[in-house]
Amino acid sequence: SSIVLLPGDGIGPEIVEQARLVLAKVAERFGHTFDFSSHLIGGIAIDETGDPLPQATVDACRGAGAILLGAVGGPKWDDPSAKTRPEAGLLKIRKELGLFANLRPIKLFDELADASPLRADIVKGTDILFFRELTGGIYFGESGTSGSGEEESAYQSMTYSVGEVKRIVRMAAQAARGRSNRLTSVDKANVLEPSRLWRRVAADVMANEFPDVQYDVVLVDAMAMHLINRPSEFDVVVTGNMFGDILTDEASMLPGSLGMLPSASLGDDGPGLYEPIHGSAPDIAGKGIANPLATILAAAMMLRHSLGLADEADAIEKAVAAVITDGLRTPDLARGDQSKSVSTEEMGAAVVAKLA
Amino acid sequence: SSIVLLPGDGIGPEIVEQARLVLAKVAERFGHTFDFSSHLIGGIAIDETGDPLPQATVDACRGAGAILLGAVGGPKWDDPSAKTRPEAGLLKIRKELGLFANLRPIKLFDELADASPLRADIVKGTDILFFRELTGGIYFGESGTSGSGEEESAYQSMTYSVGEVKRIVRMAAQAARGRSNRLTSVDKANVLEPSRLWRRVAADVMANEFPDVQYDVVLVDAMAMHLINRPSEFDVVVTGNMFGDILTDEASMLPGSLGMLPSASLGDDGPGLYEPIHGSAPDIAGKGIANPLATILAAAMMLRHSLGLADEADAIEKAVAAVITDGLRTPDLARGDQSKSVSTEEMGAAVVAKLA
Ligand SMILES: CC(C)[C@H](C(=O)O)[C@@H](O)C(=O)O
Ligand SMILES: CC(C)[C@H](C(=O)O)[C@@H](O)C(=O)O
Repeated sequence: SSIVLLPGDGIGPEIVEQARLVLAKVAERFGHTFDFSSHLIGGIAIDETGDPLPQATVDACRGAGAILLGAVGGPKWDDPSAKTRPEAGLLKIRKELGLFANLRPIKLFDELADASPLRADIVKGTDILFFRELTGGIYFGESGTSGSGEEESAYQSMTYSVGEVKRIVRMAAQAARGRSNRLTSVDKANVLEPSRLWRRVAADVMANEFPDVQYDVVLVDAMAMHLINRPSEFDVVVTGNMFGDILTDEASMLPGSLGMLPSASLGDDGPGLYEPIHGSAPDIAGKGIANPLATILAAAMMLRHSLGLADEADAIEKAVAAVITDGLRTPDLARGDQSKSVSTEEMGAAVVAKLA
Repeated sequence: SSIVLLPGDGIGPEIVEQARLVLAKVAERFGHTFDFSSHLIGGIAIDETGDPLPQATVDACRGAGAILLGAVGGPKWDDPSAKTRPEAGLLKIRKELGLFANLRPIKLFDELADASPLRADIVKGTDILFFRELTGGIYFGESGTSGSGEEESAYQSMTYSVGEVKRIVRMAAQAARGRSNRLTSVDKANVLEPSRLWRRVAADVMANEFPDVQYDVVLVDAMAMHLINRPSEFDVVVTGNMFGDILTDEASMLPGSLGMLPSASLGDDGPGLYEPIHGSAPDIAGKGIANPLATILAAAMMLRHSLGLADEADAIEKAVAAVITDGLRTPDLARGDQSKSVSTEEMGAAVVAKLA
């Protein structure tokens, strides 16, 4: 299979390299051939081509079996008056490849549970799978500016169509069937017109196509509370692009180790895109201390969801669990005790060793 | 002074009544005259007049010194196909009275700290004052529907003008001067056009008018993380209507007792509106067990901000702290030990007694 690597900015190249080594080991052990090719995205793509998502990258991604992304962005490209920004590359590739569903599993690693900012009794048992709509909503709405002086104003429109809501709700409900059979849809239907459409369409889909799945709706402000107060009560959660951005990042704090959380962005067909939840961490870029495990776990999701290699995915996940059980910690996981912490390369090599 | 009471729905009438009794006691002790009048808002207003904010209520509020609101909404009025809903009354009164700033202090009561879902070492020292923009943004943006079938879609537009951003940032920066002199502005400038305007205007206001106030900006998704991970690092936070709705509700979980949190909605002039952060809690309405303390603390904010009665406000806040120290707990605060819990009326009476 052909795998496109998009290392991107900051720590992106370092962590993607470790994931590549892990995938290469998997190929060797299970007798597969993975063809890797690296392409530009984000700030580095702006620097080299002026475009955060060059056409060559899009073409390579379209032809790939799957895509593994590091991270994009950094202070270097933060000038608000810049013509383009790294994030534009990320938004555009989601849209170009029709990756309308962003899957974010939020699950505790038992050994790391004491790193959670939440009390152990509250966070215990948390295992949520988010489906964030990724190619619609206010992210891709019409925008513009008008007027001048005090009256100068800017707008951007949140839009959802029936078709957009149906396909993401269906995908989430399917996933619920393979888990605890419960789905929660999050909206702001008491204020927003697109949320009212979302709520109505989601209820129709669930009643007509998934009567067996337990279904409820929660307002986004209430959900922001529930995630802190009773996170273990949720199973699969589906929501729009903006609410999903905020809620999944909030939820990503619960396990206490952002560096362990992968995500997948999927469409109806074509390659999926896999990446860690965390950002490009420019403050530690190049220091060799970034945690590569979220990216390695994203590679496992890639094998499972895009390449149909479930056993191989399991093997990676077991290897990651094993290095954690062995006590290996990059600095972000080591907390109080930095003396025993390992480097990005050491962590990657330890996972590779477990796969041998 | 004339005080308009808007009890609203669910537990609203019960908790507003206790706050009224506390205010009456304050009037007696400090030699003031408060004229109370009660008016309709929300679901009960729909039932009685067909309108969630009857004109008579608007007129009474305009003429008042201040307004004390209970809560609005409930399952009875939740039909998505209904012509109007209770929340419309709340949104309309904010707009009619120009209440563009929603202040939400998030502060721990030491005696209740073990009720926080966060670990004690994380939540310790948390003391944030949120300024949520309340009359603009996507809440009041143009909305509509179009198309049919799969193509049917609905939209609502997020808009901010220079003038709207300036006035809320100024108010927040002023408040920061009276506290730790730090202001954080939250936006999503990497995706949203109105956030880019917000970021630029806020930076200008801070640089030109408040060079003495330490200022930084945080993306809304990152802020949703920071509130869980390091809440004690923030002082004053200013943000737009939608982000403020989500982030203040998230933050309201930190003290572990939603029933203790008041809020104030202020404009440039005219009466302010004061209310608890929590909702109408229809599940416990009429049972006499709702916690009236957030509403009583909202009444204290009212005395301080709208009626210029700072000593009287202090007296109420001290009385509330004293009943908590005495161990009085409504069921929401009692957690494990419900045997000793007190009723809404008993809690109100205890505060009144402390004021004697
Ligand atoms: C970088 C940014 C545009 C992006 C988003 O908001 O979608 C990021 O926060 C994410 O969640 O992947
Ligand atoms: C009831 C609802 C319209 C309201 C809002 O979203 O503003 C509420 O959640 C609040 O925060 O006061």
